[in-house]
Amino acid sequence: MSEGTSGTRASEGYQGDAALAGLLKARKSYVDLPALKAMIGGVAAAPAGDRAEDWMSLVAPEPDEAVKQQLRALRAGFAPKGAPAPKSIADRLSALRAEMKAQGLDGFIIGRGDEHQGEYVPQRADRLAWISGFHGSAGAAVVMADGVNQGAAIFVDGRYTLQVREEVDPKLYEYQHLVTEPPERWIETHLKKGQRIGFDPWLFTVDQARRLTEAAAKAGGTAVPVEKNPLDAVWTDQPEPPIAPVTPQDMRYAGRSAEEKRRAMGKALADEGQDAAIITAPDSLAWLLNVRGGDVPRTPFALGFAVLHRDGHVDVFMDPRKFTPATMSHLGNEVTVQPRDGFAAGLDALGKEKKRVAIDASTAGVWIRDRLAKAGAVVKVGEDPCALPKATKNDVEIEATRAAHRRDGAAITRFLAWLAQEAPKGNLTEIQAAEKLAAFRRQDPLFRDFSFDTISGAGPNGAVVHYRVNEKTNRKIETNSLYLVDSGGQYFDGTTDITRTIAIGTPTAEMKDRFTRVLKGHIALGTVKFPKGTSGSSLDVLARRPLWEIGLDYDHGTGHGVGSYLSVHEGPQRISKVPNRVALEPGMIISNEPGYYKTGEYGIRIENLVVVQPAEREPNMLQFETITLAPIDINAIDRSLLTADEVAWLNAYHKRVRETHAPHLDAPTKAWLEAATRPI
Amino acid sequence: MSEGTSGTRASEGYQGDAALAGLLKARKSYVDLPALKAMIGGVAAAPAGDRAEDWMSLVAPEPDEAVKQQLRALRAGFAPKGAPAPKSIADRLSALRAEMKAQGLDGFIIGRGDEHQGEYVPQRADRLAWISGFHGSAGAAVVMADGVNQGAAIFVDGRYTLQVREEVDPKLYEYQHLVTEPPERWIETHLKKGQRIGFDPWLFTVDQARRLTEAAAKAGGTAVPVEKNPLDAVWTDQPEPPIAPVTPQDMRYAGRSAEEKRRAMGKALADEGQDAAIITAPDSLAWLLNVRGGDVPRTPFALGFAVLHRDGHVDVFMDPRKFTPATMSHLGNEVTVQPRDGFAAGLDALGKEKKRVAIDASTAGVWIRDRLAKAGAVVKVGEDPCALPKATKNDVEIEATRAAHRRDGAAITRFLAWLAQEAPKGNLTEIQAAEKLAAFRRQDPLFRDFSFDTISGAGPNGAVVHYRVNEKTNRKIETNSLYLVDSGGQYFDGTTDITRTIAIGTPTAEMKDRFTRVLKGHIALGTVKFPKGTSGSSLDVLARRPLWEIGLDYDHGTGHGVGSYLSVHEGPQRISKVPNRVALEPGMIISNEPGYYKTGEYGIRIENLVVVQPAEREPNMLQFETITLAPIDINAIDRSLLTADEVAWLNAYHKRVRETHAPHLDAPTKAWLEAATRPI
Repeated sequence: MSEGTSGTRASEGYQGDAALAGLLKARKSYVDLPALKAMIGGVAAAPAGDRAEDWMSLVAPEPDEAVKQQLRALRAGFAPKGAPAPKSIADRLSALRAEMKAQGLDGFIIGRGDEHQGEYVPQRADRLAWISGFHGSAGAAVVMADGVNQGAAIFVDGRYTLQVREEVDPKLYEYQHLVTEPPERWIETHLKKGQRIGFDPWLFTVDQARRLTEAAAKAGGTAVPVEKNPLDAVWTDQPEPPIAPVTPQDMRYAGRSAEEKRRAMGKALADEGQDAAIITAPDSLAWLLNVRGGDVPRTPFALGFAVLHRDGHVDVFMDPRKFTPATMSHLGNEVTVQPRDGFAAGLDALGKEKKRVAIDASTAGVWIRDRLAKAGAVVKVGEDPCALPKATKNDVEIEATRAAHRRDGAAITRFLAWLAQEAPKGNLTEIQAAEKLAAFRRQDPLFRDFSFDTISGAGPNGAVVHYRVNEKTNRKIETNSLYLVDSGGQYFDGTTDITRTIAIGTPTAEMKDRFTRVLKGHIALGTVKFPKGTSGSSLDVLARRPLWEIGLDYDHGTGHGVGSYLSVHEGPQRISKVPNRVALEPGMIISNEPGYYKTGEYGIRIENLVVVQPAEREPNMLQFETITLAPIDINAIDRSLLTADEVAWLNAYHKRVRETHAPHLDAPTKAWLEAATRPI
Repeated sequence: MSEGTSGTRASEGYQGDAALAGLLKARKSYVDLPALKAMIGGVAAAPAGDRAEDWMSLVAPEPDEAVKQQLRALRAGFAPKGAPAPKSIADRLSALRAEMKAQGLDGFIIGRGDEHQGEYVPQRADRLAWISGFHGSAGAAVVMADGVNQGAAIFVDGRYTLQVREEVDPKLYEYQHLVTEPPERWIETHLKKGQRIGFDPWLFTVDQARRLTEAAAKAGGTAVPVEKNPLDAVWTDQPEPPIAPVTPQDMRYAGRSAEEKRRAMGKALADEGQDAAIITAPDSLAWLLNVRGGDVPRTPFALGFAVLHRDGHVDVFMDPRKFTPATMSHLGNEVTVQPRDGFAAGLDALGKEKKRVAIDASTAGVWIRDRLAKAGAVVKVGEDPCALPKATKNDVEIEATRAAHRRDGAAITRFLAWLAQEAPKGNLTEIQAAEKLAAFRRQDPLFRDFSFDTISGAGPNGAVVHYRVNEKTNRKIETNSLYLVDSGGQYFDGTTDITRTIAIGTPTAEMKDRFTRVLKGHIALGTVKFPKGTSGSSLDVLARRPLWEIGLDYDHGTGHGVGSYLSVHEGPQRISKVPNRVALEPGMIISNEPGYYKTGEYGIRIENLVVVQPAEREPNMLQFETITLAPIDINAIDRSLLTADEVAWLNAYHKRVRETHAPHLDAPTKAWLEAATRPI
């Protein structure tokens, strides 16, 4: 994939090319005007938001306001070169079908991931939205070239069955369930003998490609990896690959030098008999090199690929324009940065030398495996070598993340105090609450971004597990209801994720019963001691049992790993019904978030992050340290359901919350906190 | 493998061939004298024990005492034909090495399983014991042909590290740990470039053979499936394949006709797109055809193979001499019985017709896969189609098994009452106790065998999880100690398995603390309600948590499946730390057996069997019904550690035990039971 080219147009406040060229020269800029214009499309394709002007650091060292004004105007005036793409979904489908026919394809499958199988993806990877209108976070589509009887299907899971009906035209797509009737099964029954269904081998893992191939074969057809994505071919104004600065992650937060990490990971590869590993997970690359980026929303990493050699050298394949001279110097001599276009040649070089190369099963596209194998490499499809070391945080990272949680907890506390005052007035909306919470977080100088889009759910909206408020769904937070808020921040020193459920007015006895059972599960999981070697799937039941006792449950995992100023969803550890063999190890950060959801009425979730720690006095045992510090609503508790130990836990937790935050709060907030955390 | 031939010699009471031939003729026997003599080697190779004369039903219908006497004498006089094999392990090794060289092998690997990967195996499959002297229930050996520096290794797990030192000469074998240094790893480092290590493809599954092959390849050598097992070749007096009668399992106990099972399993195959399945698990075959057998100790099945066709027909490949005319008639027209020798041809026939054939990954030898594939079949290595239906017992089986447990519980109760009287005298040994318990069980007319060798462990022997008492280890049951007894019966109507731990005299506070924690875990697991779809690995922690709280644990699974008058260890369900995805389903029988073991001091285990049942009043939930009914020692309980709910559970359980057994007990036993089950 090429880096693309872009055009600009006149924009308000832009003083002209000659003026800007002069300014750049005067400010000793890193790029001249033509280079700047060539990169502005990538800049425009990076997320807007709290750090939308960070890119200017790539133009000149510490740009002044005059430069900034011109750069702002230049970006605002950016318009993609080339013909505008069709606007309607029907026209886009027609164009895609024409291109598919030109490529000899009878069908084409479109997924939701990018080349890194990411949860958050750059704008140009929003292919499913572009071709269908569906904006959910998971899904897939299959488009058949003949277009008979729709000739296209869109696949979404239970979360999105309503949304897909609002966003996608049933005359263009039939609706299918992603889990019970996945694309592979649809292909099995809809592909005809001899037909060819295309897929983009950059966007499908080895395993996903195998499943597609088997499905097509069952139908008597073939699954074909395309050389050129036909959707990209007709999306003529597709955003460019984003360009946002790559910045060093300070040793104060990282705790371990990139050099040491590279050497250790290289040695681990060598011990496994491998010569190199392809790093395809952007958070692994960020961790390995102690850098952060801004190419996608909510997760501070930079998109690119890398080859980690057994001697600890790393070849990064990523747009060099994302690197300032300071970052290049941070990377040092054992790291090269080459344009993304050089990746194929980098793989070919490994193959030519018959290297043994490991690739990551969950993030590497099958293209990488095939390219390596064709070039002569011995490819092992396994686990990213950085995944486990990244997950087991070192002491510096843990101390940093504790600090981030203390400040984040103070912000949550201020928000809850404000909510306690404002909500009873009865006019507050979900959006207003979310914005107020955002404002409290933004006061922190180390705040960089939210770690995901805030879930602010009042009443029945709280029962929608992955709810994202918009103007249409926005509800008032009503009296005598539950309000659920799940949110998190990205700080230089850590990533947070917390859910609180607040009783507005007087909750019903049922609400209190359910809230208390969720709390009992939260406490049971949070206080368990367990032997080394225990996986999260062994512990999951502890959080569910109080609900199971009355025939209830919740339909999501109990805990996900969390990064250090990185992904809010990080593997390989998790706490879930789904069996896994990943042992919980000291230093892992994981969420503890049981819940209960009554459709159409209310939702409850109580989420703290915890760190796996050695158990006190028990050499072979581990336990959790809770690092999230914010009040749990005692007005929603039915105390008679709690054991003495559970009451003691809650009171001790609230004492910690109170003592941590009180010194930093104004008098009214402090008074509220003292009441909110009083012993029950 | 051929069925073998055998000789007889004069034996006390034998009145001569002519007399026996005459008797046989007069009694309308199924076999004439030459045929009888040809089968006596197989009869002698079947287990001795409670049903050692059942074989006589294969000779004549209802043989009278005169016939029985002669048959008894004939069997007693049996001696294998052919040269006697070497007696010493060293000589056996020499003979094996000579044979290996003749076959061009540099090494040979010997496992512990038979052709069905069974836990209990026939005498001829005790190859590891014959070549090494080691008699444990798990292990392996690798013998190298050159014999330099021993040139042989024996692999045992943690249970057998002491025993192997007693049984195996370190000059002949080096000791290795089966888990941390398994044979594959040993082969990787000990095989030399170009060397060939042989294995018997009947005795290694597809997966095991693959691992061997990879290990040999890493060493630059080859793993070779042998055509003729070199150990069998030099074991000239190896026992023949056992001959014990195959008998119908009554519909009163089976609850579902064999015809219906065959049809349903055939249809399930067809639905999966398969033409046939090879049934290699002997318990699956017994379940499918509603028959039982006597080829191995403790588990009432008959060894053989079968092909299940999609139309429900079954071709059994098993010595036809195991079948009486009555059993043949029970099997009906849709089941054929052919000699075991015909199995290869049966597979070839499937291959010739290009059939799609399923084989069981865990019990089929790789020989079967290879033979089928070579003959042209499309082989799918997966799960035995009978495994899950067999595990989910029908209502008749459950009611039958409840009855077996009531009688078994009464036998246990009589034993415990006797123990309470005798043990304090201080002279009772582990063997005496086990024999008394056996005698109580044998009083039951439906009793057939024990379901495994009784574990009767006093004091420190109770801490040996898989302890089997022998004359050398036999301990007195001392005052102020714990005595652990784990035992079970095979009854026509069900299989039982129960562990009780008894305080003899006054237990220490520590013993009571540990006993009570084990009991708390047992109750927590036994009373959990859980949603459909939950696997046993999700529930395991409930049984362990009270021990984890003080840094303790136990090193075995918490629950194994149990058959219906079949294997006491039956899959696929289990309750274990080891992740599994097998959902617990109504009708599954499983053990609930947490424990605690303090090496050198005492062992504690409390085991009941439970049946998975729909939860009362909760349509999507399941729960356990406890079917084992015998007192749990209240003298070993620290009541202050129990919650009110736990006390209530124990008292209710003891009430059930008391009300079930009291009507069937003599007065002193009844009085004991009433005291033993009084509310605490």
